[in-house]
Amino acid sequence: MDERPIGVFDSGVGGLTAVRELQALLPRERLVYFGDTGRVPYGSRSPETILQYARQDIRFLLSKNVKFLLAACGTISSVLPTAYAATLPVPYAGVLDAAARAAAQATRTGRIGVIGTAATIRSGSYAQRLRALLPGVQVVARSCPMFVPLVENGYVEPGDAVTTTIAREYLAPVRAAHVDTLILGCTHYPLIAHIIGQVMGPDVTLIDPGRETALVASRSLAQAGLLAPPGAAGGTDYYVSDLPEGFEASLKLFIGPQGAGPVERVAIESF
Amino acid sequence: MDERPIGVFDSGVGGLTAVRELQALLPRERLVYFGDTGRVPYGSRSPETILQYARQDIRFLLSKNVKFLLAACGTISSVLPTAYAATLPVPYAGVLDAAARAAAQATRTGRIGVIGTAATIRSGSYAQRLRALLPGVQVVARSCPMFVPLVENGYVEPGDAVTTTIAREYLAPVRAAHVDTLILGCTHYPLIAHIIGQVMGPDVTLIDPGRETALVASRSLAQAGLLAPPGAAGGTDYYVSDLPEGFEASLKLFIGPQGAGPVERVAIESF
Repeated sequence: MDERPIGVFDSGVGGLTAVRELQALLPRERLVYFGDTGRVPYGSRSPETILQYARQDIRFLLSKNVKFLLAACGTISSVLPTAYAATLPVPYAGVLDAAARAAAQATRTGRIGVIGTAATIRSGSYAQRLRALLPGVQVVARSCPMFVPLVENGYVEPGDAVTTTIAREYLAPVRAAHVDTLILGCTHYPLIAHIIGQVMGPDVTLIDPGRETALVASRSLAQAGLLAPPGAAGGTDYYVSDLPEGFEASLKLFIGPQGAGPVERVAIESF
Repeated sequence: MDERPIGVFDSGVGGLTAVRELQALLPRERLVYFGDTGRVPYGSRSPETILQYARQDIRFLLSKNVKFLLAACGTISSVLPTAYAATLPVPYAGVLDAAARAAAQATRTGRIGVIGTAATIRSGSYAQRLRALLPGVQVVARSCPMFVPLVENGYVEPGDAVTTTIAREYLAPVRAAHVDTLILGCTHYPLIAHIIGQVMGPDVTLIDPGRETALVASRSLAQAGLLAPPGAAGGTDYYVSDLPEGFEASLKLFIGPQGAGPVERVAIESF
C-alpha cells in the first residue's frame, strides 16, 4: 500500500484522456497531472529541447512525491531514452510503448494503422516500435493534423459533419490498406473514437494509448504492492505552465465535472 | 533613398500575408521576416511575456539594420505600448491600428464586425481602438478558432466544403448584426477571404490588416524619403525560431514560389 500520487504529464491537454482512464480504473488513487500548456506543442521541437522539457516535467512531478510516472504524450514517450527512464527513482510508462504492445497483441492479420500528429507520424516511432515487437508487421501511418483543433474546439459530437468529412479524407488510405487494428496515436483522438470507428468500420480494433498506459500503470502498481489502501479518497490535482483559464475549458471537455480538481500554474522553467 | 530592409515580425506564419502585400506593393524593397514559430502562439501568454517576446523580436530585426518595423501580429500590436514604440530608433506600424483606421474609414453605417483568434477577441482591443476612432460605432466581435488550423492545413480552395460550413457557423451572428465592414483580425484569414466574402455577401467590405499595414509602411517610407532606390533588386530573407522545415510549407501556402527566399533558424532567446 502506498498513498503517494501517480504523476501524469503531457505537453498540453491531450494527456487528460489518460487521467480519465486512470480515474475510472483506479478511483482510490491520488493523481497529479502536469500539462506544459505554456510550451505546447513539443512535436515541432528538436529532440534535445523535448528531452530538456521532459526532464523538467519529471522533476516537477517528483517534487510532488509521485510513486509512478506516466508520460501521456506521444512525443515525450518516443524521445525519452530507455536508459534515462531506467535511472528514474520511480517506475515509468509511456503511451508509445503501451499502445504498440496492445496493437501487436490485438492484430490477427499483421496489418496495423497508426494515426497521429504530423510530428509523431514523421518520427516513425510507432512503426519502428511495432516492427521490433512483431517482425513482418505491415504499418500504414497517416498524420491527421486537423483532429487536435477539431477536438479542442468541441467538434466531437457523434456524427459531427465536419469531423466526419475530415476523418473520411484522412482515413481513406488506412481503410484501403485493410488494417485490422488502428492506433489512435495522439491522446486527443479518443474523444472522437466514435467517429473514427464509424469511418473505419466494426472489424477494426481501435487502440487508445491513454487507456493502455493506464492499464500498464495499474498492473505495475498492483504487482509492486504500491496501490492506494482500501478506503482512500482519490482525487486529482492539475498543474499547467500557462494561464489556468483555458485549461479549465479543456478539463470540462476531456474529463467532465466528476473528475475535475484544483488547477494551479507552475513556473516549469525553474525545475 | 535607403537600401536598408523593412523588418516584419509575427508570432508565427500569419504575418506572411503582410509580406505578400509588401512584395506586391514595394517590389524593390528588401524584407526581413521573423516568425517566432518556436514560441507561437503569443495570444495565450500574459501581457508581460508577450512584451518580453516582442522586445526580443524587435532587437533581432534591429540587428539586421532594418529601417522600418512592421508588427504583423494582432497580439503584439495590441499589447505593445505606444510609449515603447515611440522610443524605437526606426518608425513602427502594427496591424491593429492600421486595420482599425481602415475600417473606421470604410464603414458607412457605423456597424463593424471583427473576427479573430479567441485571444484577440477576448482582449477587446479592436473594439476599443474602433470606439476611440469612431465614437458611437457598433462593434460585433466573434472568435473563429478553427480558421487558423484550417488555413495552415490547406483548406483554402474556393468553396471548400469544410471551411464554408465552419465559416457559416462562425459568421451567423456577424451577418445577423448587418455590419457593412468586417475586419479579418488575424493575419491568416486573408487566405480564406474569398470564402468569408461569399458567406458575408457582396455588400460587406473586408479589411485585410496585412494589406492595410503594408500601405501604412509604404506611405510612411515614401514621405520620409526612405524607399529603396530605383533599380534595387528587392527580395526577402526569412528567419524563424523553430525548425525551418515546417515553415517552408507555410511559405509555399502563404507566399508561393515567387516570393520565397532563404529560411534560417534564430536563437531568439539570446536577443
